[in-house]
Order: sequence, then structure tokens, then C-alpha cells
Amino acid sequence: MNEHVDGRKLRFEHRRGEILRAATEHALDHGLAGLSLRKVAQTVGVSHATLVHHFTTKDDLVAAIVDLVLAQTLALPDLVDDDPEPLETIWRRATSDKGRRYIRLFTAITGHAMHDNPKLRDAVARSIQQRTALLAAGLVRHGCPEPEASALATSLLSTLRGLLVDFLVTDDEKRVRAAFENLAAELDRRSAGWQPPAQQRV
Amino acid sequence: MNEHVDGRKLRFEHRRGEILRAATEHALDHGLAGLSLRKVAQTVGVSHATLVHHFTTKDDLVAAIVDLVLAQTLALPDLVDDDPEPLETIWRRATSDKGRRYIRLFTAITGHAMHDNPKLRDAVARSIQQRTALLAAGLVRHGCPEPEASALATSLLSTLRGLLVDFLVTDDEKRVRAAFENLAAELDRRSAGWQPPAQQRV
Repeated sequence: MNEHVDGRKLRFEHRRGEILRAATEHALDHGLAGLSLRKVAQTVGVSHATLVHHFTTKDDLVAAIVDLVLAQTLALPDLVDDDPEPLETIWRRATSDKGRRYIRLFTAITGHAMHDNPKLRDAVARSIQQRTALLAAGLVRHGCPEPEASALATSLLSTLRGLLVDFLVTDDEKRVRAAFENLAAELDRRSAGWQPPAQQRV
Repeated sequence: MNEHVDGRKLRFEHRRGEILRAATEHALDHGLAGLSLRKVAQTVGVSHATLVHHFTTKDDLVAAIVDLVLAQTLALPDLVDDDPEPLETIWRRATSDKGRRYIRLFTAITGHAMHDNPKLRDAVARSIQQRTALLAAGLVRHGCPEPEASALATSLLSTLRGLLVDFLVTDDEKRVRAAFENLAAELDRRSAGWQPPAQQRV
């Protein structure tokens, strides 16, 4: 193996991640609607040529940003097992300053996926389906009967997404928080009838 | 009053509505992202000058389309009083071919409202707040205790919006329909404890 080539490759790969994170910050602030390679190059502080070297086209850069944001928004699976109040933790994270930026961009991405954009639609669909399956698996580990888990996970995620959009748009914290507490109470009511969680392997 | 001027004004006003409906059809098909006065003029079959005469700028045309779509999407208030299964009727309408086109554009509009667009954000916020207040009033007429109505209306609308987005993106009718039926069952469970509807004046 040629160390020089490997070293250069590693440096390029490192740089790609760094540029992508900076470009994602730009999208988190301003959305995707007015995004251009020129603007991103300016914000990130690299030349237009460097950006093209790493991402080829605006569409490829947007696809990379979308993958990153879809992977980081409402990162549920790590919350379900050990947390005594997983829904409250999700809500607190999603409504934090950082969380709101991600939900805002996720909502913008979903909006862009509605028309003439089958690739983006597929990416958002995969994200929703994966998160639903992960949450359903978590609910089953907490004793939810398996045939009910998928519909319940779908309801929970849909309600959370809907409430967060309401909150982001109206800024009406008291009304939306009261609706969230309804959701938490309804989940408590349902889960009271479940068998105790299955033993976790240690 | 000058009849000639009035007649011309009426004719113009009629034409404005006709153009707006055609432009809205264009947006329902293709969204707002690539919308331009030139494309709309071409689709609607009027000159660019006529379009500018009626709507001045692209932003003004988009604002008029948004007002029309926000007013027509999830038109709830007429459903609540006489319908034995209002939620089912809302779902059937929203998931019909016509309903899906409106929900799709509503979702795209909400996405556009997320960044650097305070006017659009205010329009979407007003729409969500008005619909929530109308649904809350309908729930109270059906016996829902007044202090609970606003949070319940917020939950119902958020869940419906979230489920419809899941359905539009994933096309996974069975899973989303099962989640909708959970929502309907939960509303039945809650409303079973309510007082009978207040007498309507005849």
C-alpha cells in the first residue's frame, strides 16, 4: 500500500466530513430552499472548486445533508430502554434550541419531498419507517403486545411530529405542552395494562 | 357611479379568481419550490403581463395560493356537528385523491414556512390556531369539558397531520390506517365520559 496516497485520502475524507457538517449548519439556519454551492462555499470558507470536488452537484450536497439530518432527528432508539420517562426525554430534546433547529430542517425536508422529488421522498419514507420499527421494537420490550406495537409507534411518532410542527409555527408552548401531556398520560394508561418488560440479557 | 368602470372592475375581479384557481391547480401538482410567474402564465394560458397585472409579484401570487389552500385544507368546522363519525369523514376526505393533493401542498407550505419566511409562518400559524379553536368549540358542543378542549383539539389535529404526512410519504396505508383507528377508538373512549351534546337552537 502507498502511504502517501492513503494519507491524502484520509485527509480528504476528514475534510469532506468537516465541510458536510458546516454545510449542514448552514442548512439548519436557512433551510434548503435558497441553498447554492456558492453560498455554502462562502459560509464554510472553502473554494467553490473544493466543494465541487467533494460533492459534485448541489443535489448531491443536499442529499448528504438530508442523510445526516434524517439520521440525527428524533434519535429515539437509544432512549427507549433505560429511561423511566422516554417520551418526556424525547420532548425535552426535541424542543431544546438544538432540537428545534433539527425538527425545523426535518419539516422543511419533508415539505420538499412532497412534489417532483422521488429520491427525497424515499429518504424521508425510509427514515419514518426505520424510526417506527425501532420504536415499535422498544415498545414490545416494554411489554406492548406485538400486534399493537406498529400502530402505536406510528401514532406516537405522528403525534410528536404534528405537535412539534404546531409548536415551531405557532410558538404556543402552553397549548402544545398540554396536548403533549395528554399523549404521555394516554401512553401511561395503555402501558399500565402491559406485562412487565422482558428480562434484558446482561 | 360609473357603470362602465364598475363592469370592467367586476370582469377583472372575476378573471383574478379564475387565474388564481388555475395557478393553485399548478401548485397542487408541482408545489411551490419551482413556481415562477412565467410557468404559471404558460400553464394558465394568460400573458405574463396579465399575471403581473393581477398579482404584481411571485410572492404575492404565492401568498394568494397559500391563503386559498390553508382555507380549504382539512375544512373541519362543517363536519363536527351533524356527522355521527366526524373523524372518519375527515380521514376519508383527507385521504381521497383530492384531499391528498391539498395535504401534500399544505405540507410543502409548512416546510417553506420553517426558514426566513415570517409572513408564511404567520399564515400557517393562523390557520393552525383557527382550526384548533374551531375543533375545540365543536368538541365542547359534543360535551367535552371546556378546560380540556383546546389540548384535545391540538392533539387530534397534530396526530391527523402527522399520520397524513406518514401516509403521503410512505404510502403504507395499512400501518397508518391502524394508527388512525387507535385515534378514533381513543376519542370514543374519552367522549363516552362526556355529558350529552348541548341542545342546538333550531
